[in-house]
Amino acid sequence: MKLNIALLPGDGIGPEIIDQAMKAVKAVAEKFNHELEYTEGITGACAIDAVGDPYPEETHELCMNADAVLFGAIGDPKFDNNPKAKVRPEQGLLAMRKKLGLYANIRPVETFESLLHKSPLRRELVEGADFVCIRELTGGMYFGEKGRKDNGNTAFDTCIYTREEVERILKLGYEFAAKRNKKLTVVDKANVLESSRLWREVAQEMAPNYPDITTEYMFVDNAAMQIIQWPKNFDVMVTENMFGDILTDEASVITGSLGLLPSASMGIHTSVFEPIHGSYPQAAGKDIANPIATILSAAMMFEYAFNLKEEGKAIRDAVAASMTEGFVTEDIAEGPAQGTSAVGDWIANYIEK
Amino acid sequence: MKLNIALLPGDGIGPEIIDQAMKAVKAVAEKFNHELEYTEGITGACAIDAVGDPYPEETHELCMNADAVLFGAIGDPKFDNNPKAKVRPEQGLLAMRKKLGLYANIRPVETFESLLHKSPLRRELVEGADFVCIRELTGGMYFGEKGRKDNGNTAFDTCIYTREEVERILKLGYEFAAKRNKKLTVVDKANVLESSRLWREVAQEMAPNYPDITTEYMFVDNAAMQIIQWPKNFDVMVTENMFGDILTDEASVITGSLGLLPSASMGIHTSVFEPIHGSYPQAAGKDIANPIATILSAAMMFEYAFNLKEEGKAIRDAVAASMTEGFVTEDIAEGPAQGTSAVGDWIANYIEK
Ligand SMILES: CC(C)[C@H](C(=O)O)[C@@H](O)C(=O)O
Ligand SMILES: CC(C)[C@H](C(=O)O)[C@@H](O)C(=O)O
Repeated sequence: MKLNIALLPGDGIGPEIIDQAMKAVKAVAEKFNHELEYTEGITGACAIDAVGDPYPEETHELCMNADAVLFGAIGDPKFDNNPKAKVRPEQGLLAMRKKLGLYANIRPVETFESLLHKSPLRRELVEGADFVCIRELTGGMYFGEKGRKDNGNTAFDTCIYTREEVERILKLGYEFAAKRNKKLTVVDKANVLESSRLWREVAQEMAPNYPDITTEYMFVDNAAMQIIQWPKNFDVMVTENMFGDILTDEASVITGSLGLLPSASMGIHTSVFEPIHGSYPQAAGKDIANPIATILSAAMMFEYAFNLKEEGKAIRDAVAASMTEGFVTEDIAEGPAQGTSAVGDWIANYIEK
Repeated sequence: MKLNIALLPGDGIGPEIIDQAMKAVKAVAEKFNHELEYTEGITGACAIDAVGDPYPEETHELCMNADAVLFGAIGDPKFDNNPKAKVRPEQGLLAMRKKLGLYANIRPVETFESLLHKSPLRRELVEGADFVCIRELTGGMYFGEKGRKDNGNTAFDTCIYTREEVERILKLGYEFAAKRNKKLTVVDKANVLESSRLWREVAQEMAPNYPDITTEYMFVDNAAMQIIQWPKNFDVMVTENMFGDILTDEASVITGSLGLLPSASMGIHTSVFEPIHGSYPQAAGKDIANPIATILSAAMMFEYAFNLKEEGKAIRDAVAASMTEGFVTEDIAEGPAQGTSAVGDWIANYIEK
């Protein structure tokens, strides 16, 4: 099969972790006889510096022509805490999501036995937790009308959803639940928000079409508690953009393995795979960043974008082996720590073997 | 001093826990020679059943004429999961907040040594955590314009804030921080929302007026992580209504003492004191509900509404004693459990002694 990939390393540690992921991708492509084609584009702070736009048209073209996008991370401290900055790296992310129609962000929450002692939760609560958060990514307050009135003294944002948007993401939620433990938790604030009432109406209409799947409704404030108290009760959780931003980040820290978690954003035109963690500028260029989340994002790319399950598994097995061996970076090492690049090599070699 | 209180017991366990709190209030009033006047009003599901309105005008008048309102809890399962119900108990809450101008919800997050083993977090992370969440309560998406378009197939909600609303709540935040550990964390989503950018602008303008206080800015997704990972780093957190709904509930479970936490809602016309927990309908009438959160809400009432610190402390000391003695309800009892009413009596007796 021909694999046509766009690479967007981004800022900070982005380039080095993408390098490691590409070692794994190349190893898998070789082993399974896939033809690999890839092109690199700029995005984020480095793209603002280079061309004044965090998601330049050229980069967009690249993504549109690719079957999948492997993304590092963006963000630079020089843009922080400046509410009046006209161009911000995050705008690149949002533009990419909108223009590529990346309507669903998918984050598996998994535990790694060897990292459970790093979880802020008691071991017995989180051990074995295994769920998927699906966040709607192109609607809601992120993209609704926003602005100022009264000479700038009043500010507003609009959360807006159409029935089609809600149906599309709930359908994906049901598909995931069907392949997993058959429970879909729809998170909303239907006791207050009209947009949430639409979500709940649509869910209640769709639920009978999935008789094998239990549909559960949960208010967002309750969900924020349940994620900490009973994380094992979730199977697939689906929610709107802003709630998803908050809850997926909350969910990502309960396992103690934030630095290892991958994500996928499924789109109309293509799909994007990236680690959950940020651009970690303090670590850039020091060969200390953990590449595993990006390497696992590459595994998701094989599975989700190319439907190549065995290839994805080959990467996952190699990652698991590196962790069992303790051949890992300093953030998770119990014994001697390895560099970013050494870990990338080790995993690629393991795949080739 | 004359203490003029409105009592709104509400639904479920509301009436029984308010009864216990009133035992403590009467004991304190007697001990410190205050004249106590109180009147009871209906609200919530029971008010819908009685007069078709969860916050009847009569109840509102009662609150307007009171110096403070002691509130139980509202909600009944018969109104759940029905997005099309025309009148819901929660509307009573929202109407009360708006009509009484309850612009600030204040929730202290405190740990109780004897309950730390119930915390979902590892003891060392949460032990000694002590912060206050201040949630804006009459603005944002809760009260902005909302509705449907396209024959009901598009739904929207508006998050809207004025400079005055933001200033008012930040001022309160600074006042709390000044009396505590001098750190104010302003939680927003200024990288995406225009309303958050207004919040941040106003905070940046106000910060220099409080040179003793460190103002920290944090994105809401990050805050959702930090609350679990480093709860001890917070002193006073302030945020808008919807974010506050999510984060205060998240914060309330990390200590393991959700059932014990009180809250205050400060208003223009009066202020309301209520436990954080809900109406717990399954427990109603069984004499098993824990009255401590409501009794501590009464302590907050003395402190915040009447500025009677010693009276508040007398209640707190009695509650602490009941916990040290193990004279508590089944939810937190290690030894034999006591009934709701017995605990209320014990605490009132302790105050009288
Ligand atoms: C950087 C920011 C705009 C972004 C978001 O809020 O979506 C980030 O927090 C994320 O979750 O990917
Ligand atoms: C019942 C509901 C409307 C309410 C809210 O969202 O404000 C509740 O969750 C709360 O936090 O008091």
